[in-house]
Amino acid sequence: MSTTVKAGQVGRSLPRLEGRAKVTGRADYIHNLRLPGMLHGKIFRSVVAHGCIRRIDVAAARQVPGVHAVCVSDDIRRVIANPYYGPAFHDQPILAIDKVRHIGEPVAVVLAEDPHVAEEAARLIVAEYDELPTVTNEVEAMTSKVIVHDVLKPAGTFPDLKHLEGRKGTNLALDFHLRRGDTKKAFAAADHVFEHTFTTQPVMHTPLEPFVSAAEPGDGTLTIHTASQSPSFVRIEIARLLGWPENRVRVKTAFLGGGFGAKLYIKLEALVAALALLTRRPVKIALAMDEQFFTITKHPSTFRIKSAVSKDGRVTARECEVWWNGGAYADIGPRVTQKSGFTAAGPYDIDNVAIDSYALYTNRPPAGALRGFGIPQLVWAYESHTDMIAHALGIDPVEFRRRNLLRDGRPQATGTVMQDAATGKVLDRLVERMGLGRSFDHGQGTIKRGRGIGIGFKASIAPTTSVAILNLYADSSCALYCSTVDMGQGSDTVMAQIAAEVLDVPTETVRVVHPDTDVTPYDMATLGSRSTFHMGNAVKRAAEDVRAKIDALKAELGLPAGSNIPVAELFRRKYGMQAGNIVGVGSFVPDYASPDHDTGLTPNATPFWMVGGTGAEVEVDTETGHVRVTRLINVADLGTPINPRIVETQLSGGAIMQLGFTMQERMEYADGQLLNPTLADYKIPGMRDLPTRIENEAVAATQTSGPFGAKGVGETATFGVSPAIANAIDDAVGVRLTDLPLTPEAVYRALAKGGR
Amino acid sequence: MSTTVKAGQVGRSLPRLEGRAKVTGRADYIHNLRLPGMLHGKIFRSVVAHGCIRRIDVAAARQVPGVHAVCVSDDIRRVIANPYYGPAFHDQPILAIDKVRHIGEPVAVVLAEDPHVAEEAARLIVAEYDELPTVTNEVEAMTSKVIVHDVLKPAGTFPDLKHLEGRKGTNLALDFHLRRGDTKKAFAAADHVFEHTFTTQPVMHTPLEPFVSAAEPGDGTLTIHTASQSPSFVRIEIARLLGWPENRVRVKTAFLGGGFGAKLYIKLEALVAALALLTRRPVKIALAMDEQFFTITKHPSTFRIKSAVSKDGRVTARECEVWWNGGAYADIGPRVTQKSGFTAAGPYDIDNVAIDSYALYTNRPPAGALRGFGIPQLVWAYESHTDMIAHALGIDPVEFRRRNLLRDGRPQATGTVMQDAATGKVLDRLVERMGLGRSFDHGQGTIKRGRGIGIGFKASIAPTTSVAILNLYADSSCALYCSTVDMGQGSDTVMAQIAAEVLDVPTETVRVVHPDTDVTPYDMATLGSRSTFHMGNAVKRAAEDVRAKIDALKAELGLPAGSNIPVAELFRRKYGMQAGNIVGVGSFVPDYASPDHDTGLTPNATPFWMVGGTGAEVEVDTETGHVRVTRLINVADLGTPINPRIVETQLSGGAIMQLGFTMQERMEYADGQLLNPTLADYKIPGMRDLPTRIENEAVAATQTSGPFGAKGVGETATFGVSPAIANAIDDAVGVRLTDLPLTPEAVYRALAKGGR
Repeated sequence: MSTTVKAGQVGRSLPRLEGRAKVTGRADYIHNLRLPGMLHGKIFRSVVAHGCIRRIDVAAARQVPGVHAVCVSDDIRRVIANPYYGPAFHDQPILAIDKVRHIGEPVAVVLAEDPHVAEEAARLIVAEYDELPTVTNEVEAMTSKVIVHDVLKPAGTFPDLKHLEGRKGTNLALDFHLRRGDTKKAFAAADHVFEHTFTTQPVMHTPLEPFVSAAEPGDGTLTIHTASQSPSFVRIEIARLLGWPENRVRVKTAFLGGGFGAKLYIKLEALVAALALLTRRPVKIALAMDEQFFTITKHPSTFRIKSAVSKDGRVTARECEVWWNGGAYADIGPRVTQKSGFTAAGPYDIDNVAIDSYALYTNRPPAGALRGFGIPQLVWAYESHTDMIAHALGIDPVEFRRRNLLRDGRPQATGTVMQDAATGKVLDRLVERMGLGRSFDHGQGTIKRGRGIGIGFKASIAPTTSVAILNLYADSSCALYCSTVDMGQGSDTVMAQIAAEVLDVPTETVRVVHPDTDVTPYDMATLGSRSTFHMGNAVKRAAEDVRAKIDALKAELGLPAGSNIPVAELFRRKYGMQAGNIVGVGSFVPDYASPDHDTGLTPNATPFWMVGGTGAEVEVDTETGHVRVTRLINVADLGTPINPRIVETQLSGGAIMQLGFTMQERMEYADGQLLNPTLADYKIPGMRDLPTRIENEAVAATQTSGPFGAKGVGETATFGVSPAIANAIDDAVGVRLTDLPLTPEAVYRALAKGGR
Repeated sequence: MSTTVKAGQVGRSLPRLEGRAKVTGRADYIHNLRLPGMLHGKIFRSVVAHGCIRRIDVAAARQVPGVHAVCVSDDIRRVIANPYYGPAFHDQPILAIDKVRHIGEPVAVVLAEDPHVAEEAARLIVAEYDELPTVTNEVEAMTSKVIVHDVLKPAGTFPDLKHLEGRKGTNLALDFHLRRGDTKKAFAAADHVFEHTFTTQPVMHTPLEPFVSAAEPGDGTLTIHTASQSPSFVRIEIARLLGWPENRVRVKTAFLGGGFGAKLYIKLEALVAALALLTRRPVKIALAMDEQFFTITKHPSTFRIKSAVSKDGRVTARECEVWWNGGAYADIGPRVTQKSGFTAAGPYDIDNVAIDSYALYTNRPPAGALRGFGIPQLVWAYESHTDMIAHALGIDPVEFRRRNLLRDGRPQATGTVMQDAATGKVLDRLVERMGLGRSFDHGQGTIKRGRGIGIGFKASIAPTTSVAILNLYADSSCALYCSTVDMGQGSDTVMAQIAAEVLDVPTETVRVVHPDTDVTPYDMATLGSRSTFHMGNAVKRAAEDVRAKIDALKAELGLPAGSNIPVAELFRRKYGMQAGNIVGVGSFVPDYASPDHDTGLTPNATPFWMVGGTGAEVEVDTETGHVRVTRLINVADLGTPINPRIVETQLSGGAIMQLGFTMQERMEYADGQLLNPTLADYKIPGMRDLPTRIENEAVAATQTSGPFGAKGVGETATFGVSPAIANAIDDAVGVRLTDLPLTPEAVYRALAKGGR
């Protein structure tokens, strides 16, 4: 990846600040936390997907030597009267109450000083259920008689969910509708109409560090140590559950061994909080890898997309109907449905658009945010659809995209005018890097070769806020307090670079203090590729505040503003010794306007746009259906990178993760049971699954409103991977797959029906 | 104590925020800290007061099973090349190097996982010394041939010590001189001249919590958990010793079980830091009670005071010569010598003053700050001297004081014009409360009764700075970050009251975050009764900053500034959800001008004055010399109290502590050995030693520059106790004692020489 190296701290591929600590095993993780008197919890989980709890027998478990307590929902209620949580709906019980709604739902917890004792005892718990019929498919859930929740309970935090309060007899947790122009008229007048339906499968985040939380009771206070991407949210939600003021709940995080959206909102935090208050002892729960499958997943989806196209290859109207399988509890699914839903028509300039996006409850483990927040599911559909239309019309797919591309200055479906979204450059650079238009060897014999591309875009989350505090010490070293969680994406380094650039000091002199709600100020959460932009802006402002105070100090000491006197010397002159510090505060809240409830339109849908495209070259074995991705090229508009090397790893990482979801990962269900909840059976990409060549490029771009021209990049390389590969397979062997994953079996079966 | 109760948060006797936690045993103390893999250290100490180390044999100690390491100064040097520390001089080695200079000096340390093993093994260490002659008296140290330090090494932090750099062959660590007017001429012209000499004895702080520190190594970082009054200083000094930037050293404190000046600067911190880096494991050292005697003490002193008095009872000139016995290492002694030294002439309006104040090195354990910072030693002398003059001249001691009192608007010895120093009110209220001038029963038979007063004043420390951060959460609860250490004086509560008053919220909603240099901003230290004034002002400003930002937010939302909308609602309107926070910063640095090096004069010696007086009634048993204090009245100008009940306990506490130093406490030395380093032999006041009646009164006063009119009070009640009691003994039985403590033996011997 080529980037111009600047002279300052920003724009340089500095090594990660935490690199040494991680390599030497000294980096802090919650898994390593030991507290005096700590109890370990092991969760007993439901083995049925839907049922009324008839009986839970914990007597045998209680009698195991070393077991301190066994708790069920009635125990939880002794400390939390209304133990339902969730960011969008207060629908999820801390432990199952009366009913279970998905396989693996927590029903009871064993507490012991030894985690192995707890695990052993948990096996002795017996639960009996009156099984209920289930609904598992998102489209069927729209009309099914099986209702997952008797009554809808919106959290009250999102005004657009308010009208659902108390609604009964439905599995619909949010219906988002966008109407732009007149699709009916446009379809009636169309030269061509194309309609396809695409699906995606259930998959999960698979961070190498499974979920882990601990709670430590104090005197009218509670400290929660948790591997969370959203410490500020955890505090507010736990305070709400307990009916306490926010400042009695302290939430501390450490490094995360990956998050990818899994570790957002409440996962184990409410459970350990309740258990710590019940037992008056610290309680820790660390999930085993297999328990992750039952905790949070990526939304399976069904996307019906229909386009009206003129004979000169312009898309004149598009209808999108997307069903999101949210599982048994809403988590942040309604936001996926809306925030990603409104881009379902793709990065194309279409005058008439109708989007209907539905969040559905089903009897599956809950689905939530996962790197891309629904966008990869959408791009998968609309970029496969794009190639299918182009082929049908005999237009080159690149040319077809160019004719329809949504460019800066033009309104997106919501009406928001595009700005700093380098769709054209991303497409051009992708075409150039792929050598599209130049000759290509399509292979021979049983090995066929093909290539394809896909491009997508994503809005950032809004409205949100970030606050940063920068504390400059008398020797000009400093501490940066921010609640951005470094979960491997390198945010500590990037934030330090931004502060260092403003203060004109080396990045290593900036110490980044990890999230601790008693210490670091509010940040909405580390998600949606928002940190570099939102927190980056807040950090820049905090540093500018410090700089302004340094200048004021110089003025007070009668020194010219430009005078190059070290900070340590300024302090000495002021205080007569090495003493004192300067505290700067920065706060950032981008402008935002909520979409109109009826039309989904808004003049200001996002603080910035992420644009990414992927090109794939594949080899398909026509005898086995096996597909080998030989080259993967990711091109992104991420503004101007703060740290090019970190950006590079983000692009590779995002693309490889989506590669797994494209080629191989799938949670397999049969008879209501999950068949493959182990990493032996649920296979994520290994080194041998990687493409021979992975290339990344950041196009020359500037996010005007971003810190030093930067914006987020954590999700961008996930967008185009799936359709690029499907389009490449079609290019190689002439079969069109519309369901993920693109397994050898699926390719083989499609070939058997007849490929090229 | 009577105080007007106001309607707001300030001026109310709210219960202490930490009261419940302390009563229920949940309050945090460093003594309770356990860290995984932690080693415990036991110090092996010198048994000679001055000597060259010939040999240290640690072989037997090393072989004790469970001993991890035994370290001497050569080991320390492997991680700290130049292991000398100190706030004023870099004179104190972390472990003795080549020489020992006082009894109990740390020579070696045993590290073991079990503290009892470490203690056992430390007994097996053998050290041999070539003993050297000693100097132990402060006056003799001026001219002694025994030199404690070959070369003086000022720390460089105090410009007025710079001229001592490299000086050889002297025990003088600072000589402070003040010259005002022409004392020579005034004495020559005097009607009367009085000269007396007073001494004070070695005593110590005796906090109930002995010294304790732990160090935890990280990746290029070090966290120090310590029961310290000066976390910001510890960080700067440890960073200096290690040659690291400040932000690689993190210092955390908890509640302190008393400090009284003992837990300032470096005590165990440098030692545990070095040991943690050597062993790469957490290391904790918790001293036993007896080890406190060898760590830091109060300055023994000799004070020659000489006054010229006109026949109408006006003091026209005063010469003060004060020798401070600083022990083997300077600690903050030079500052005691100067900062307290300049008030040696007392709260009297004297045109011609000469003060010479000397900090001396001797072969005694180091002396440092102790509640009053030298002032009680001075008041002991000048207020005994005052009564002695009055009696000699046949003037009523109260009347004599009134004629000479230094009042607002008049220059103090330094030239600084007195302001907000209610000397007159304190004297008047004391006279009124004591009923002086009214008849008094002087007793009969062997029990004689007497009464006496003493008043004193103290400057606050300067220049210093305090910074506070206030973080207001979306539900209007908030966290206050400040580095003031709550060591029992109630600062958490007082700071919370100040913040709450400004924000108009209940005090209980303010959570005070304890000092942590990675979290709480710089504060010079918790000492010198400076916190309420300095940090109180910083907290007030931080809260005002928050209030200004709330008003700005209201304006942004189009609400009138006075509109009474809850903060939570403002945030909801701004962010569309319960989110966000407001961070306010406050910084306070009072104006200050250093004294002129030659004359000691300055127009601005202190940010505020503390004024306190004590009245005592005693019963003296003429057969045994036993003195019973039957009534102790403390009157203070502390401005307007923030929390009257806390102020009341501060006054009682200060007076009782000084009562111990006055009546009974003394470290007894013989043949270079300390005879009574246990609380069985070194007796601090118990319940039965307390006066029958203790009364406290804050005079109606306002410190204009203080937060809500307040100023410090932690030391004020210590000022007058010793001379009040000595004056009362003289009133009862006509004997004048000039050496502390006023033991029955001293009284008996004086009576034997002939009393009234």
